[in-house]
Amino acid sequence: MRIGILGYGNLGRGIECAVRQNEDMTLAAVFTRRDPASLKLQTPGVPVYSASEAAAHKDEIDVLIICGGSATDLPEQTPLYAADFNVVDSFDTHAAIPAHFANVDKAARESGHTAMISVGWDPGMFSLNRLYASCILPEGRDYTFWGRGVSQGHSDAIRRIEGVRDARQYTVPVEAALESVRAGENPELTTRQKHIRECYVVAEEGADKARIEHEIVTMPNYFADYDTTVHFITEDELQREHKGIPHGGFVIRTGCTGREGENRHVIEYRLKLDSNPEFTASVLAAYARAVYRLNGEGCVGCKTVFDIAPAYLSPKSGEELRAHLL
Amino acid sequence: MRIGILGYGNLGRGIECAVRQNEDMTLAAVFTRRDPASLKLQTPGVPVYSASEAAAHKDEIDVLIICGGSATDLPEQTPLYAADFNVVDSFDTHAAIPAHFANVDKAARESGHTAMISVGWDPGMFSLNRLYASCILPEGRDYTFWGRGVSQGHSDAIRRIEGVRDARQYTVPVEAALESVRAGENPELTTRQKHIRECYVVAEEGADKARIEHEIVTMPNYFADYDTTVHFITEDELQREHKGIPHGGFVIRTGCTGREGENRHVIEYRLKLDSNPEFTASVLAAYARAVYRLNGEGCVGCKTVFDIAPAYLSPKSGEELRAHLL
Repeated sequence: MRIGILGYGNLGRGIECAVRQNEDMTLAAVFTRRDPASLKLQTPGVPVYSASEAAAHKDEIDVLIICGGSATDLPEQTPLYAADFNVVDSFDTHAAIPAHFANVDKAARESGHTAMISVGWDPGMFSLNRLYASCILPEGRDYTFWGRGVSQGHSDAIRRIEGVRDARQYTVPVEAALESVRAGENPELTTRQKHIRECYVVAEEGADKARIEHEIVTMPNYFADYDTTVHFITEDELQREHKGIPHGGFVIRTGCTGREGENRHVIEYRLKLDSNPEFTASVLAAYARAVYRLNGEGCVGCKTVFDIAPAYLSPKSGEELRAHLL
Repeated sequence: MRIGILGYGNLGRGIECAVRQNEDMTLAAVFTRRDPASLKLQTPGVPVYSASEAAAHKDEIDVLIICGGSATDLPEQTPLYAADFNVVDSFDTHAAIPAHFANVDKAARESGHTAMISVGWDPGMFSLNRLYASCILPEGRDYTFWGRGVSQGHSDAIRRIEGVRDARQYTVPVEAALESVRAGENPELTTRQKHIRECYVVAEEGADKARIEHEIVTMPNYFADYDTTVHFITEDELQREHKGIPHGGFVIRTGCTGREGENRHVIEYRLKLDSNPEFTASVLAAYARAVYRLNGEGCVGCKTVFDIAPAYLSPKSGEELRAHLL
């Protein structure tokens, strides 16, 4: 299976690593909007092309994994490239999924390709777990907690404050809320009760730290509804202690069964990730295998993780899976 | 969707409860090998028929859920009833799955029905989580822990000892082993290091408790390879404290990504169940929906949880799922 990568940022580099872990995949090409000569790949011998020339290489690629951002890149890129390629993306603007799905589905059907959108862990593996758990326990309630992990959007919001040189924001689930959910207490949780926000900030020399802290904790949408802590640290500390991009979280559903609902059950799915982009890339690579196979079976159009039978993710045969994993 | 139940034990009664929680399902009939007049259902107006007359009622049932035991019932029942019905079973003898699959597949294909075997939580949801996690993190290792929960087989083994009136055995994961796995230490764990066995025993009056305890802890296969504790209790205590059938467990995969495998990830799926049979029944009911739909699409033969796209489990449309659960 010949994999193409469009966009060589954190996610694209993660795909490159994931391809190396899957024996049935090879990295066939990387496409970039930058100057192709400026990219240094980890994998020797792989060509780098300009994104604008991608269509000329469509016969060299079985599945193109599109590693753009959800805000402006993917809404344009995924339908565009679905005209020439089987594609997978990690579109994660939950509210805009129906519109994105419709655009990609139309393009993929017209060209006879198979496309998948919103692959990763949320949307992605967390969505799958919400679906499975809600189908098994129809009388129940589910909760999603994120973290402990770096939120890029919140880190960026802090960096835009005057006097801030750099910043890193961690989203942290509130332990007491998690415990209450696990205990089946079905709590009603406010935004503040579910997550806290920890900020590590490098201030410019002579900046007014009290003002920066005040601007952070009162920032609407981003921080005002949360208990937020602000720690001023040095550039060195930031580089040493906060260089990684960890993330993770929990999907928990509690529900009841029995004549009178007397028996309670807890289904919990947890991720603890050292690298958010590399894990997301690993999910994308597994689903690229499914896309390739589905296209081979003539199954075209746009799919999500809900539409893919799990066996399609595995390089093993049905016989092997039944004998060893079931 | 008209559901039939074959076998009205703990699992069959669990199906009856699960059907009530799913608005698109009705319980159409219960089939039993006992005298039909001897069964008292919870649901008014549902007919009880003799299992031997099931074929006469095939047009009244969309999916028949077969609630027999894996040792001797299901290997005969599931292929037999797949001749006349779409069927689902919870066959859980892992080593015999390939042979059972072949028998059921042949019967279902010949009759144009859709069948699913080995549905529940292990095999079932645990298998799914082993599959997803191993496809996402190909360089990794997974561990399954069971419990804390009642093992029927081990409880029965104790009851067969002379002088034992009743007994309940709990399988308990070793907390230190769980923590080591979660920490990504990839431990090599012996049987003894993974689980302990807690036994609650009601002895006959005047029985030699020291001998009973010795027979339990030295019993080959069942207890000799474990750290086993034996607690003698009264019949009253057993009824009061150990009446339930709780179970659960953990599937954990740890793996690494990155240029040098420098980033580690933990995927953990956990179940904590008040009632093992009722939860299993809830999984069976959700997959009965999938079987019904697949048959409507002309997809016949034997399937497992690996073959079913998650969306088939849900009463919601693709549009609804994408808009609200993805």
